Amino acid sequence: MSQLDEPRWALAVLSALIEPGDRDLDDLLGEHGLERTLGLIQEGTVPHRLRQQTSSKLAGTNLARLAAEVCASTKRCGARLAVPSDADWPQRLRDLLILSDESEMYTRPPRCLWVRGEGRLAEVADRSVAIVGSRNSTPYGDHVAAELAYDLAKRGWPIVSGGAIGIDQAAHDGTLAAGGPTVAVFANGLDQTYPKRGAGLFDRIRRQGLLLSEWPPGTRPHRHRFLIRNRVIAALSAGTVVVEAELRSGARHTARLAAELDRPLMFTPGPVTSARSAGVHQLARDPWGARLVTRAEDVIEDISGEVSVPMRTSTRPRDSLDEASHRVLDCFQAGFVVSPRDISQQSGIPLAAVNISLRDLQKLGWVEQRDNRWRMVRTVASG
Amino acid sequence: MSQLDEPRWALAVLSALIEPGDRDLDDLLGEHGLERTLGLIQEGTVPHRLRQQTSSKLAGTNLARLAAEVCASTKRCGARLAVPSDADWPQRLRDLLILSDESEMYTRPPRCLWVRGEGRLAEVADRSVAIVGSRNSTPYGDHVAAELAYDLAKRGWPIVSGGAIGIDQAAHDGTLAAGGPTVAVFANGLDQTYPKRGAGLFDRIRRQGLLLSEWPPGTRPHRHRFLIRNRVIAALSAGTVVVEAELRSGARHTARLAAELDRPLMFTPGPVTSARSAGVHQLARDPWGARLVTRAEDVIEDISGEVSVPMRTSTRPRDSLDEASHRVLDCFQAGFVVSPRDISQQSGIPLAAVNISLRDLQKLGWVEQRDNRWRMVRTVASG
Repeated sequence: MSQLDEPRWALAVLSALIEPGDRDLDDLLGEHGLERTLGLIQEGTVPHRLRQQTSSKLAGTNLARLAAEVCASTKRCGARLAVPSDADWPQRLRDLLILSDESEMYTRPPRCLWVRGEGRLAEVADRSVAIVGSRNSTPYGDHVAAELAYDLAKRGWPIVSGGAIGIDQAAHDGTLAAGGPTVAVFANGLDQTYPKRGAGLFDRIRRQGLLLSEWPPGTRPHRHRFLIRNRVIAALSAGTVVVEAELRSGARHTARLAAELDRPLMFTPGPVTSARSAGVHQLARDPWGARLVTRAEDVIEDISGEVSVPMRTSTRPRDSLDEASHRVLDCFQAGFVVSPRDISQQSGIPLAAVNISLRDLQKLGWVEQRDNRWRMVRTVASG
Repeated sequence: MSQLDEPRWALAVLSALIEPGDRDLDDLLGEHGLERTLGLIQEGTVPHRLRQQTSSKLAGTNLARLAAEVCASTKRCGARLAVPSDADWPQRLRDLLILSDESEMYTRPPRCLWVRGEGRLAEVADRSVAIVGSRNSTPYGDHVAAELAYDLAKRGWPIVSGGAIGIDQAAHDGTLAAGGPTVAVFANGLDQTYPKRGAGLFDRIRRQGLLLSEWPPGTRPHRHRFLIRNRVIAALSAGTVVVEAELRSGARHTARLAAELDRPLMFTPGPVTSARSAGVHQLARDPWGARLVTRAEDVIEDISGEVSVPMRTSTRPRDSLDEASHRVLDCFQAGFVVSPRDISQQSGIPLAAVNISLRDLQKLGWVEQRDNRWRMVRTVASG
């Protein structure tokens, strides 16, 4: 029996032949299944585009031999192979199926992932935040990325990033400093150290977190692979924060993907005089609903959304409130302040009654006044 | 005949007695008219709140004598009095009537304005932008305010601000440097120089723009008057930009008023590490729809809204386009980029047809591609 008979390594060998996320291959797999697709590739009876990619790589060898090589090189570099049927597979990656943009070819979910490190992939990814940004970052940007990552890690949110110099490495570093796990997603095989300047950091990530790649060992980080890789960063995490980015940058690409995946997209601002911040400021004016964040609390608020769920299970049960107060509370969203007028309009309760309810709710510790507006008291859930 | 018989000076004397924007006085004037209201004040048969304010100021004198004094002091300091019936009155101030927030007493439109300077008030105000911010600004903030004001002035947009040290003065300065008029709205009588550090600047504003106040000469800039004054800055201008602000600051008060007046509210970001920028960054998370701007073009775009009006009169008439392209173009808003998918959803045109229209419109110079999205070509109106 060859490795090719194991679905795991059959998927792996596909990644040695055809770039991850390839829509045509994904459609073939959907139509014919894994075994038959391998047969079609071996025969060369796949669409011209795919045949172009596979024929040279299969010249003088065959799928079985290639599978054995991939399996051996994987073991040699200390990696393991994760596939979608594994219990430890991050289900969130399936959301990539909603990317239907015709102009990009490599949008589909990963077929498999090479993994190095001690962490459990699905568990670490579940409550993770992507922090991405410029390779050519400023000391300000590095500081912001590291601080944000540190504070998020301290609150139980690991950071996903791309291992690049600049913002990526600052974010990984901040997470490690807080003792948290972090995930670096590479655009090259895990036997390569790229960039070289990350060698020490990647060692620490391996011991404290996870190194990931969609490509088998031996794969070089070609330029187009960063764009393919970015979708994994966007899909793996619960939300993406861009810290510094030029107007044209890979971080803005990751940001767009996060928005298209309906993940919260956030950015930290910087001086308008800095070209490194021009790309994040443009995000604020793009139609993707990017939110400005300045601290970990903002990020967690934007990712976890409404606080109404923990509140309903709080020790101050809403059941004891009258109907008007109930409806007034329903008008509050996490972190937002609202005016009595807005509440009146939204709830249909007369303004005078809204004001009475607000005073009652204030006495009970549910809401607090801020200028002439009101917000939910954040600590009520644990109070 | 005393000055009191002239409605202009009768309105002026009211401002010597009762703070501008007072809702109770405004309601009295609406109910009884100017002459009868003056009679009620003289008799002391006005609501207790108003009587408290007027009785001490009328002790040992009367309305006619007070009117003569106000008139004389106005002339002495070289000011003129503008009233709502003047052709040169900025009609936009009437929008203050939509402020219906019960918790603030001084929200109504100005009854009259003391004016010094060479500019024409309504004309200068019409295309004006308010730039406000911290008194305790950083060199970065001063730089941003001055540059933004300069660039806006060069494009024909005068700046309205409050004459305070810090951001206000930097903004006035930038406008003057560009040769444009600027409007300083004070919380004190125009015979006072406050702050002293603005003396030279105010002289230049008087020669090149306008100094405004709702208070008669002799009025001191008490703390509560800044809050009353802020509504004039917000209402007079077509939109408000906050450049630097602490979390609690007058600039944030002006910002809230601008938002309540449905004026575009904007802010320039700064380093997240700067306490001076914390208040502007909070604006981005407040529910007021504040827009991030980094340059004059952003501000003008946010204030003037859709570009469809100038485009319809362009030398590339839309009339020559087919129906599908028409409907595709209707999906574009100034400065926003949209995806073919969004256009398809919004217009009801199949995606394939949208893509064809976009290519056609691109060849004709109407739209341009940006990453995988499209935006209106900005210069098409003049092309």
